Amino acid sequence: MENIIYISGHKNPDTDSICSAIAYSELKNKLGFNTVPARLGNVSRETQFALDYFKVDAPKLVENLSENQDLILVDHNERSQSIDNLEALHLLEIIDHHRIADIQTSYPIFFRNEPVGCSSTIIGSMYFEKGITPSKEAAGLMCSAIISDTLLFRSPTTTDRDKEVLKKLAEIADIDPEKYASEMFKAGTSLKGKTVEEIFNSDYKVFNLGDKKVGVSQVTTMDIEGFDEYKKDMLAYMDKKVKDESFNVVLLLLTDIIKEGSLLIATGEDTAIVNKAFNVELKDNSVYVPGILSRKKQVIPPLTSAIEAK
Amino acid sequence: MENIIYISGHKNPDTDSICSAIAYSELKNKLGFNTVPARLGNVSRETQFALDYFKVDAPKLVENLSENQDLILVDHNERSQSIDNLEALHLLEIIDHHRIADIQTSYPIFFRNEPVGCSSTIIGSMYFEKGITPSKEAAGLMCSAIISDTLLFRSPTTTDRDKEVLKKLAEIADIDPEKYASEMFKAGTSLKGKTVEEIFNSDYKVFNLGDKKVGVSQVTTMDIEGFDEYKKDMLAYMDKKVKDESFNVVLLLLTDIIKEGSLLIATGEDTAIVNKAFNVELKDNSVYVPGILSRKKQVIPPLTSAIEAK
Repeated sequence: MENIIYISGHKNPDTDSICSAIAYSELKNKLGFNTVPARLGNVSRETQFALDYFKVDAPKLVENLSENQDLILVDHNERSQSIDNLEALHLLEIIDHHRIADIQTSYPIFFRNEPVGCSSTIIGSMYFEKGITPSKEAAGLMCSAIISDTLLFRSPTTTDRDKEVLKKLAEIADIDPEKYASEMFKAGTSLKGKTVEEIFNSDYKVFNLGDKKVGVSQVTTMDIEGFDEYKKDMLAYMDKKVKDESFNVVLLLLTDIIKEGSLLIATGEDTAIVNKAFNVELKDNSVYVPGILSRKKQVIPPLTSAIEAK
Repeated sequence: MENIIYISGHKNPDTDSICSAIAYSELKNKLGFNTVPARLGNVSRETQFALDYFKVDAPKLVENLSENQDLILVDHNERSQSIDNLEALHLLEIIDHHRIADIQTSYPIFFRNEPVGCSSTIIGSMYFEKGITPSKEAAGLMCSAIISDTLLFRSPTTTDRDKEVLKKLAEIADIDPEKYASEMFKAGTSLKGKTVEEIFNSDYKVFNLGDKKVGVSQVTTMDIEGFDEYKKDMLAYMDKKVKDESFNVVLLLLTDIIKEGSLLIATGEDTAIVNKAFNVELKDNSVYVPGILSRKKQVIPPLTSAIEAK
């Protein structure tokens, strides 16, 4: 019997690692190899949306493979991100788009690394170079990976190659990239099922600006509307924080990097600072501010100025 | 002005390192880049034959490049084989066919490593993939590299890809690979200009086999005929060695790995051992033995048996 070859992305897998493993496995199998996609961790909500949309099973979850198992890596070439017993395995290929890192072999292998936005851009190219048409499912998953890694071309890592390959694949997958991306990002960043504590504390920092104590939490979500049902509880949680920890202002940013703006939710005695800093008017403790994406660069400096100008 | 990109093979450059740098430079320039081939050491006789045949200048000799110089590596991905100040340079690409080694980058680059017999096989493929026809000169140099690295397909590292690419390139270069290989190997391994001491001592070992003291030198050359002018002086040199160092036999093997055989030159009182070991008859102290390539596996064991059977 022919050897099975595992194809795996990195630990803590993102959509590219999962979808590239599946799509490359299909390509290799069409070329006569006997491969199965694998994953080194849980599937994210975003990835699960893509798998559900195209009705594809998640790859097999593996932790260690048996000694000398044939293996292909996608979307990483960094030992720390790879399967634990990598050194005991038989590495055949690497397809990646990251820095050249620290995996060594004692024999020549196929290694294709390209400075493009996504591993699936390379794998899509390989289909076209070999004149093989991916299935609708594989094409759809590669689209999902490219959209995810490039934030639908908003990431500075995006290249023309990513755009070209997505265009071709989207036709095969029969999707409208803009519409599909919006649905996938919404599903991937949905707040559903989380508690207000979880949402607030996922990326929360305290700042002493002038004589004011300010707490600022930031959550990236492409489902700001989904926040409506949390608003009342979140404000109560933030109010309690203001009182218990003597904050002047507690601020939550819900940032939509696709629409490129943030919904600001503010509580505390000095919320006027927020109005002044961003030249807005909070209404029921919230206001949407277009263009605000970075806490460090676009939120803390104007808050500081507003406090100092007081 | 556009940045110049250097393209360099490894230190102690072989025909692949020189010819791949030149051929890849032509390809990149045809794609709109501004590249120049470079080399990290002297051009071998074999490589010089190829350059002369196709009337191409040797690449520029470099030792260090100025900081942040753009650079592409061909035929190596091993720091110790690369330019000394590699870490200070701006590495753009690697095209190679060796093991994955220890060069790291802090940013994604184009890295194409394939388990084929020669870097020029990959570069030739890249021309064809991009629909670009190499010049006769570049095609000829890539043929030279493939012939050199694969010993015209006699090396176990040879793949079908090497054969396919050589076939296509040989048509463009207008050469007969067999005939060209024979001339190139002959030029590359010519003994011309060397002294008998240099020839004899390049790979010489002493063995005590049973009660006999035997000296065996081996020289790889595809120009055995070129030895004729040395024969008289070499025999005098070997006879002196026999007397001065009390050898029973001193043996020189001139091995042609393309014709797959060795000319044996033997001196000393016990040259009958050589006749017995290889079932041959020395004539004027020499005899050509087909099939003999390895001193370790095909010369020492039969000499030992012949001595012990005495």
